[in-house]
Amino acid sequence: MSATSDISSQSDAIRAILALVRPGLDRVEATLTELSNTDDHVMGPMLSTVLPGGGKRLRPALALVIGRLGDVDSDTLNHMAVGVELLHTASLVHDDIVDDADTRRGSATLYARVGNALAVMVGDYLFAQAAHECVATGDLRVVRLFAETLGAMARGQIDEANSQLNGQHAWQTLSRDDYFRTIWGKTASLFVLACQGTGLLVGLDPPQVDGLRRYGENLGLAFQVVDDILDFTSTEQELGKPVGSDLRQGTITLPVILLRDGGEVDGHYRSAFESDDIETQIRLVQQSGAIATAYGEAEALVTRAREALEVLPSGTERDALDALARFVTERGR
Amino acid sequence: MSATSDISSQSDAIRAILALVRPGLDRVEATLTELSNTDDHVMGPMLSTVLPGGGKRLRPALALVIGRLGDVDSDTLNHMAVGVELLHTASLVHDDIVDDADTRRGSATLYARVGNALAVMVGDYLFAQAAHECVATGDLRVVRLFAETLGAMARGQIDEANSQLNGQHAWQTLSRDDYFRTIWGKTASLFVLACQGTGLLVGLDPPQVDGLRRYGENLGLAFQVVDDILDFTSTEQELGKPVGSDLRQGTITLPVILLRDGGEVDGHYRSAFESDDIETQIRLVQQSGAIATAYGEAEALVTRAREALEVLPSGTERDALDALARFVTERGR
Repeated sequence: MSATSDISSQSDAIRAILALVRPGLDRVEATLTELSNTDDHVMGPMLSTVLPGGGKRLRPALALVIGRLGDVDSDTLNHMAVGVELLHTASLVHDDIVDDADTRRGSATLYARVGNALAVMVGDYLFAQAAHECVATGDLRVVRLFAETLGAMARGQIDEANSQLNGQHAWQTLSRDDYFRTIWGKTASLFVLACQGTGLLVGLDPPQVDGLRRYGENLGLAFQVVDDILDFTSTEQELGKPVGSDLRQGTITLPVILLRDGGEVDGHYRSAFESDDIETQIRLVQQSGAIATAYGEAEALVTRAREALEVLPSGTERDALDALARFVTERGR
Repeated sequence: MSATSDISSQSDAIRAILALVRPGLDRVEATLTELSNTDDHVMGPMLSTVLPGGGKRLRPALALVIGRLGDVDSDTLNHMAVGVELLHTASLVHDDIVDDADTRRGSATLYARVGNALAVMVGDYLFAQAAHECVATGDLRVVRLFAETLGAMARGQIDEANSQLNGQHAWQTLSRDDYFRTIWGKTASLFVLACQGTGLLVGLDPPQVDGLRRYGENLGLAFQVVDDILDFTSTEQELGKPVGSDLRQGTITLPVILLRDGGEVDGHYRSAFESDDIETQIRLVQQSGAIATAYGEAEALVTRAREALEVLPSGTERDALDALARFVTERGR
């Protein structure tokens, strides 16, 4: 369920953001590489599979931009940015177990390489490293938010796994509220940690911290809605996994819910879902108006995220956060 | 690899300790029960399987006894004791996945009940709750130690899993140092959190905190050595799992290492290990002098743990910690 586009390959606005935080992002990357460059012949190869170079580093970029709004030394801000990315990486290692996923970003997952037992423990080890970085910020409020985020992420995945176990019924019973609660936990909570957590850390005032929380929350929800759309509209090459993976795993996402609730359901649709005919299900969603409606929802969330920025002082950083929010819906178009 | 005896069924000395911390232990139990008594129909049944009533509560008992040595309010001490027990519980949930274990303490494991995906996530959820309790102590040093402990525990399990993957060679190649490093991570580190962490929390002076660290470390090592002996010397009924489970899983423990290195190895032994004849391997260990030698090592560790207590003021609490240390080797005899 990860998106495939990289912020470094995007528009001028994104290039401007990257220039703003490039030294910080380079340092995050160096720290992650250092963590995996260990003499330890057991951990080294496993950490090298998951830590350096793979991801978009969107969450650390958020922390680094927000860090510029307040007063913080670069070591502390690096701990925050690395902590957020390590938590993200740890959760991906466990998500791949839960999803029984062989590939991510076009490469074999750690789970596929080393098996279930080691992948569970490497995920735990990375949670510990993430906690360690958050503790190194020296701010107990950040660590508290870290603990809440870890709980919310696990809870989101539990809801998703539980709804998968309901099998054939999930497409009928999963409500919009269920869907948004699930993606709040599994995706938006980590954006909240990056945004609200960094706001707290650098000493912004409570209304600004609250604005950053709402920004992170809406941005994270929009990000996941777009991911769930791309699972239908991208190619296998772009996704690094088969099109329609969510439905293949029994995960019901917003486009399916919108199709079901949007008055487009007819006998054809019903029989495809009742008979477990996944290829037809995917095609029906792709051809429906639900994709455009889902994009509309993502855009509304992005608008809410951008509005939440109004409490921040105008300037380069606010513009960068604004551009990052717009990027979320643009990346799929 | 959990022991089966309960501290509540032990000697007069242990009963005296329990009386000392009974109100605290009752509150820990009530907090754990409360966490699982949720209206949430997804989490409630899963948490009820792992949280209330099952364990020995040895780690919270350590925290509660040590808490009496310093200055701390009962809410804060309860957060510490509950945090340590939640971390223990979370690690057991993941250990059962790693060990592919169907039963623990004679009951079906959460892993056996709900499957791999949900068990991974419930473990993560419990790590989050443990972190949350540690954060609620308000002491960043405790949270730092928590993060180190989580990392050490995962690392210990990774070493064990990795040595299992080496299969037939582990009985030849695993050194005493490897063994003790592994059990330091997977078991002793959590005793260190309970002992050193509580010492820090209640404001003991650095030599006392250091003594508590050495006490916890040696106690934890002794505890695991005895567990590994009991895996050979107990009955299936006492263990709640088959005798010799460690060898059956490919885990090489101290008795096997002592047998191999103790000059008792002959052709019979070598052929049993080379041919994967587990029943004969177990019988050879049971009949060897390695069991008594391993007990001797556990007793030496307990002595070191008791000596580390000398920095504490004499009195009821020190006596209780001393009795708890003796209990560790007594429980198997």
